[in-house]
Amino acid sequence: MKKIGRLHILTDVVLQSRFSHLDLTGMAVSGGADVIQFRQKSGSTREVIEVAQQMKRMCAESDVTFIVNDRMDVAIAAEADGVHLGQDDFPIPLAREMLGKDRIIGGSAATMEEARICLSEGADYVGFGPVFPTTSKDDAGPVSGIEILKQVVKEIPLPIIAIGGVVADNTPDVIQAGARGIAVISAVCCQEDPEQATRDLYNALQKSGS
Amino acid sequence: MKKIGRLHILTDVVLQSRFSHLDLTGMAVSGGADVIQFRQKSGSTREVIEVAQQMKRMCAESDVTFIVNDRMDVAIAAEADGVHLGQDDFPIPLAREMLGKDRIIGGSAATMEEARICLSEGADYVGFGPVFPTTSKDDAGPVSGIEILKQVVKEIPLPIIAIGGVVADNTPDVIQAGARGIAVISAVCCQEDPEQATRDLYNALQKSGS
Repeated sequence: MKKIGRLHILTDVVLQSRFSHLDLTGMAVSGGADVIQFRQKSGSTREVIEVAQQMKRMCAESDVTFIVNDRMDVAIAAEADGVHLGQDDFPIPLAREMLGKDRIIGGSAATMEEARICLSEGADYVGFGPVFPTTSKDDAGPVSGIEILKQVVKEIPLPIIAIGGVVADNTPDVIQAGARGIAVISAVCCQEDPEQATRDLYNALQKSGS
Repeated sequence: MKKIGRLHILTDVVLQSRFSHLDLTGMAVSGGADVIQFRQKSGSTREVIEVAQQMKRMCAESDVTFIVNDRMDVAIAAEADGVHLGQDDFPIPLAREMLGKDRIIGGSAATMEEARICLSEGADYVGFGPVFPTTSKDDAGPVSGIEILKQVVKEIPLPIIAIGGVVADNTPDVIQAGARGIAVISAVCCQEDPEQATRDLYNALQKSGS
């Protein structure tokens, strides 16, 4: 299995249109991302697969983990290193059957209960949040804050990746709360210089220890 | 493998909103459809899978073949009898690897060249068209007419299912041209009584021989 990593960048072409998924992948990898997550809800399956295949190649060259959000079909066609499955996405138990133990399966959780479900269904890590207020997702729901994050870290014996409103400034807080790493969308994709924004997050993680 | 059938009804909730996928499945099955194809481009993967699972159960009760359009992930999760893959959808060769020989894979072709590709990639049948002008698909392209359909039937040793503008009145023409069967969307879904519309097509097929 590829590494679950600490700095997950979700490439996004809905919140911004200056950069393509490939542009963002290149910049995020150069800036120090160790996981790239591809989320694309529109377009033909063939187009989405082709983009995913290119992203996978780019990630593989730098030994960066490549994860596909939701779409098991795209993940399989692009030989992704794993999938990230939200509560409304493809079911985790069936994904495990199809992918075996060598591919990463991440689950999304907004509450302790959802985190428990991710664990019981066999996820390899939990993307937990929104920890802080975020503008990246319309349906993100209420923020958990640092205290609930701490409880999840304590109870759920899986790597917890904090998502939702995470920026360089609050990265030390989520790492001190026990999160293994962070996942960001707009904090990289919507910044003037996504590579520098990634590097700032990378440096914040380095300084925060583990 | 389930039967490829002669009367394929694509349930559609974009061109009309009076009936759900399940409503249409029930009416089409009652009217004599032997294949139901599920095409749903929006909504969460989980929702789409749940609808597909219900449609599959309904089809199985009547020994009707259940095919999922494009989405291999949904087809696998719903244990569909097969998939139908257009030129911009999931690639047929990889679908075959994943589904094995017991599940049906249909391909879409608008030209002889595309029909040859379906054959060489391992499709079990070809949905060929639009044979006649249609309003069901924005991107359907130019009509082939009956003559090209005949050539495809002659050259491609697979069951050919005619699609695009097929109605009860021209069904004898496409069957006499050698098509195994027909596939319709609006000729059922957008009619006042989809069950009766299906029955009319069924009767037209019965009268047309094989």
